[in-house]
Amino acid sequence: MIIVIKKDTTQEAIDHVVAKIKEAGLAVHISKGKERTILGAIGDEAALASIPLETFPGVEKVMPILKPYKLVSREFRKENTVIEVEGVRVGDKEIVVIAGPCSVESRESVTEAAIKVKEAGAKCLRGGAFKPRTSPYDFQGLGHEGLKHLAAAKKVTGLPIISELMDPRDIELVCEYVDIVQIGARNMQNFMLLKELGKIDKPVLLKRGLAATIKELLMSAEYIASHGNNRIILCERGIRTFETATRNTLDISSVPVLKQETHLPVFIDPSHAVGRWDLVNPISKAAVAVGADGLLIEVHPDPEKALCDGAQSLKPSKFSLLMEELRVVAEAVGRTI
Amino acid sequence: MIIVIKKDTTQEAIDHVVAKIKEAGLAVHISKGKERTILGAIGDEAALASIPLETFPGVEKVMPILKPYKLVSREFRKENTVIEVEGVRVGDKEIVVIAGPCSVESRESVTEAAIKVKEAGAKCLRGGAFKPRTSPYDFQGLGHEGLKHLAAAKKVTGLPIISELMDPRDIELVCEYVDIVQIGARNMQNFMLLKELGKIDKPVLLKRGLAATIKELLMSAEYIASHGNNRIILCERGIRTFETATRNTLDISSVPVLKQETHLPVFIDPSHAVGRWDLVNPISKAAVAVGADGLLIEVHPDPEKALCDGAQSLKPSKFSLLMEELRVVAEAVGRTI
Amino acid sequence: MIIVIKKDTTQEAIDHVVAKIKEAGLAVHISKGKERTILGAIGDEAALASIPLETFPGVEKVMPILKPYKLVSREFRKENTVIEVEGVRVGDKEIVVIAGPCSVESRESVTEAAIKVKEAGAKCLRGGAFKPRTSPYDFQGLGHEGLKHLAAAKKVTGLPIISELMDPRDIELVCEYVDIVQIGARNMQNFMLLKELGKIDKPVLLKRGLAATIKELLMSAEYIASHGNNRIILCERGIRTFETATRNTLDISSVPVLKQETHLPVFIDPSHAVGRWDLVNPISKAAVAVGADGLLIEVHPDPEKALCDGAQSLKPSKFSLLMEELRVVAEAVGRTI
Amino acid sequence: MIIVIKKDTTQEAIDHVVAKIKEAGLAVHISKGKERTILGAIGDEAALASIPLETFPGVEKVMPILKPYKLVSREFRKENTVIEVEGVRVGDKEIVVIAGPCSVESRESVTEAAIKVKEAGAKCLRGGAFKPRTSPYDFQGLGHEGLKHLAAAKKVTGLPIISELMDPRDIELVCEYVDIVQIGARNMQNFMLLKELGKIDKPVLLKRGLAATIKELLMSAEYIASHGNNRIILCERGIRTFETATRNTLDISSVPVLKQETHLPVFIDPSHAVGRWDLVNPISKAAVAVGADGLLIEVHPDPEKALCDGAQSLKPSKFSLLMEELRVVAEAVGRTI
Repeated sequence: MIIVIKKDTTQEAIDHVVAKIKEAGLAVHISKGKERTILGAIGDEAALASIPLETFPGVEKVMPILKPYKLVSREFRKENTVIEVEGVRVGDKEIVVIAGPCSVESRESVTEAAIKVKEAGAKCLRGGAFKPRTSPYDFQGLGHEGLKHLAAAKKVTGLPIISELMDPRDIELVCEYVDIVQIGARNMQNFMLLKELGKIDKPVLLKRGLAATIKELLMSAEYIASHGNNRIILCERGIRTFETATRNTLDISSVPVLKQETHLPVFIDPSHAVGRWDLVNPISKAAVAVGADGLLIEVHPDPEKALCDGAQSLKPSKFSLLMEELRVVAEAVGRTI
Repeated sequence: MIIVIKKDTTQEAIDHVVAKIKEAGLAVHISKGKERTILGAIGDEAALASIPLETFPGVEKVMPILKPYKLVSREFRKENTVIEVEGVRVGDKEIVVIAGPCSVESRESVTEAAIKVKEAGAKCLRGGAFKPRTSPYDFQGLGHEGLKHLAAAKKVTGLPIISELMDPRDIELVCEYVDIVQIGARNMQNFMLLKELGKIDKPVLLKRGLAATIKELLMSAEYIASHGNNRIILCERGIRTFETATRNTLDISSVPVLKQETHLPVFIDPSHAVGRWDLVNPISKAAVAVGADGLLIEVHPDPEKALCDGAQSLKPSKFSLLMEELRVVAEAVGRTI
Repeated sequence: MIIVIKKDTTQEAIDHVVAKIKEAGLAVHISKGKERTILGAIGDEAALASIPLETFPGVEKVMPILKPYKLVSREFRKENTVIEVEGVRVGDKEIVVIAGPCSVESRESVTEAAIKVKEAGAKCLRGGAFKPRTSPYDFQGLGHEGLKHLAAAKKVTGLPIISELMDPRDIELVCEYVDIVQIGARNMQNFMLLKELGKIDKPVLLKRGLAATIKELLMSAEYIASHGNNRIILCERGIRTFETATRNTLDISSVPVLKQETHLPVFIDPSHAVGRWDLVNPISKAAVAVGADGLLIEVHPDPEKALCDGAQSLKPSKFSLLMEELRVVAEAVGRTI
Repeated sequence: MIIVIKKDTTQEAIDHVVAKIKEAGLAVHISKGKERTILGAIGDEAALASIPLETFPGVEKVMPILKPYKLVSREFRKENTVIEVEGVRVGDKEIVVIAGPCSVESRESVTEAAIKVKEAGAKCLRGGAFKPRTSPYDFQGLGHEGLKHLAAAKKVTGLPIISELMDPRDIELVCEYVDIVQIGARNMQNFMLLKELGKIDKPVLLKRGLAATIKELLMSAEYIASHGNNRIILCERGIRTFETATRNTLDISSVPVLKQETHLPVFIDPSHAVGRWDLVNPISKAAVAVGADGLLIEVHPDPEKALCDGAQSLKPSKFSLLMEELRVVAEAVGRTI
């Protein structure tokens, strides 16, 4: 850690900072320049994390050197993590497309969706049973019933299923049914939930929060990993900016940044990122081209009748066409779908 | 609801939209202009909320007319809501200052803080027992033990206490000890938690999320109100922007906007908004001047030793001075502290 | 235009609004619902633009129906605009790559860059003579001398050249040398400059401002078009958000949104968007896949010695490799490079 | 400057970086830790600014130590700068209120506004002659004619005048009439204009750009100062965020941050920040309480007829009332108005 001391700071104040760092078990290197004195704290940076050095008299700024995440970092593990789910390999050469309706509405409709997306080449079925909705007056999902419908659709198609968990009290119930546990953007920093996810033996798909930095996304993954579960899939789904033409702003650069920083698979959810079905096609192509390991796409047998997020759902025919086009793009960047 | 139809849309497509609106039980007024056809849907707008009209062929945009929140709106209730907590009236002419350490670290330190902030004029004691921390390696709070220390501090000073709830499984435990339940920014859209809060008989202080609009903050309050609890205090604590000179950007305008939109009391948390103790003084004055009903200020007997957010905590002596200065500003705007 | 009237507004106040709209020459349709009265102003919406209706007593909100841009809109012209520059067709099936150094540093270096990028397949040479720099102490460009060096590089390679104009006083000088005039992000709303650009007979590449919405970008293009010049190329180069892992956040969705809204060609500048050369490759692929009509890429013979933005510049060898890879992606989406 | 080297970097690569720094005339201190090697470059940091060290093999990140602005910094000059304009002292104990219409519409209306705002206590008259408007179809200001009307209003009232300059070609004309030159948010990084402003002998009021950091605002001020003019007033007028309830988000914390960083006076423009006249009153009070040296407030004799920004303009009677209330708040924080 580097500590920059303000000009004209008394020696006493500098000594006070130095003493504090040494107390924490680190060595200090002092460099006096014409304009600033710089302290280099050498040793275990984590031991300094809980000391508010920036509040000490004379301290101008504190600059950490090391990254705050460890287990999920590329430094910790150089090879890509590949996660096996019911025979599907996530994070490998093949790009994995997860598709299905935003929310499970009935056994029939989710099974129909499952059949259609499987035919088109999807490798996993998505569908919300517990739905986070901005308004208390909107459809909140079918809950346990919805999970059962998903299981029925899995039985018919063989597709592994992913569904969102919102409440630590539901973790056993959800794990009984799903193959991948989805954590939504609004719960990316629900730390109580993250700790519980560290104890389960299912993979977790962790969505980036609307206002979360890439570093914070990795810290949330570190929560799960440090509690024992390292089968984590990261998912970019758009961040909140001033632009209103799309529901959110897809931060497509986050994919190559994440691929450098972490060994975990990185997905993109074009449907939530843009919020408009007519933009899902080009954005999905961009996602494949940029190097995403998978996509999460909303498909509904009849979007006009969807109880949730119909505006961003593709019809099965359009999804099928998209998959064909994505295959060509995937090949162009040395991947398959 | 107003539905704008794209130029050159077929009559068939328009009829389809009209039919759908009528099916939902609303009347439709059609206005054909030279450039656009406009549909006005007259009746219960909520009945249309679940229909993704923007996805229908020919629809250019959909513009809701009514506000999505009801119970918390100023229209629903014209007078300010005043919430009584252990003899303290929140939302009345007196501005209520809540102060104390970021996290409870020991019985002694939180009691010392309580005595000091009471002397200075604070009306309520804050202190975190369960702490949401970005890193899994940071201090996570004392949990149940911390709640007991708060209770001890209350016994000594008589100050009502507020502490954060993060997990629905802790709701009974937390309610046993605290007088006001605090919901942090990261849980503003933890809808499972919000629903539970609707069932308790304690006031809730709901902090605005880092990327939450004012409308979304009100919708989260509506969750609590619609489940039965209307003793809600809203709290602005800074939003996330591109500016890095401060931890967050305090959206001070949100206070007069909220005072127009809702009858609920509105607080400001200057400490979290700016993240630097040396800015807490001027920002607190601005908060009082702009019309906030209360402040949430971090005070620690020894900020250099704070286990959490020491950089933004005031020493008791500085807090005491601040309170004196705030009294003068409060008087200047017709309030008291 | 739709005007929503607040509940409990007096008839007198409503009449006042209605009178004002009629005064401006529009007809008014009044719809009284249970909750709100809605006024529909029918006729030339532009005539209402200068009346601050939202400030009239009783007005809750004002919602425009029509888009504020005309000449640049897809409604005005259905077919893509193709701009010919020295034999290069911009906006056609072929994706046009513009490459070269951030700033012109010497005749030798810019000529070397020109030769290299041409060999790799670039169709146009970029190079800044006038440089907008955040600090007054940074290299400000060679000015007129730089333009001469660009002309020399053009003479050697035949590549048309693009360079930035920052000052209306330099417009004649710059137009004497360049084939496309570049307007940087910081000048997207330099309206005096935009008006002048409407009078020249050179194509303009207009970059989106750091905090500009897509609508505002189109309004700035409308400035140029309404003053007489409709040869405009739009360029997305990243917007400012809270994320700091990249220099800016590339808003990749803006491309398909713009392709719907306007007939003008749309480019992406990956170098400025991310600010790191090691991310330019995947982002360029995404740009091609999403449907951009061209790319603006920084290439420097020796990035370590670049006087400006070396961190985001590719070496010629890396650029050459990128072009080969882009050709495959272009083909995958039915384009060529 | 601190340069952090990636783990496992070769000695050769490190030597290369070290050589480069020494070549630039700085000394290098090398510190090898267990996890990272850290290079401290000691000497004139500016000499390193043009070397893209982050692009060198093995470099993880580059952290500057010194602030990039000098002349405008509090370090350079400890005392507050007080600027005298026609007998008005800006930056002193008295808070200076500048008021008037958004744009000059006629000699009569601007003179009427001037008389009214002077009566209420304003010390300076604002009014736009050249108007930056998002749409080319909106009123663009009266230009030279508008400046003459301002001069007439000054003659009647004695109030010094401030008006916006947008084009370097108008600088002589504008300086002939105005007492303070205003640079709008969209031109904060119009560096050609800033350089010219360094050569004039009029004070400049420099508004913060919509997406400009506090540091960038100071760098733009440094442009003016480094070219010879140090009579600069900074003005916060709201930044662009995701929140849409107000036109912009007033970054009120920027005032105390700026007062720490610079000796220049700092103003707030509540009218542009919020864009709604009904919020100007509370926001102005907050601005005074937080420590602003002045306010810029839009006042129009008849806002309903304003050709520009009527929605955010106060009627003279409301302005007069506001000034009375502000006087009490100013007194509460030890200032006068």
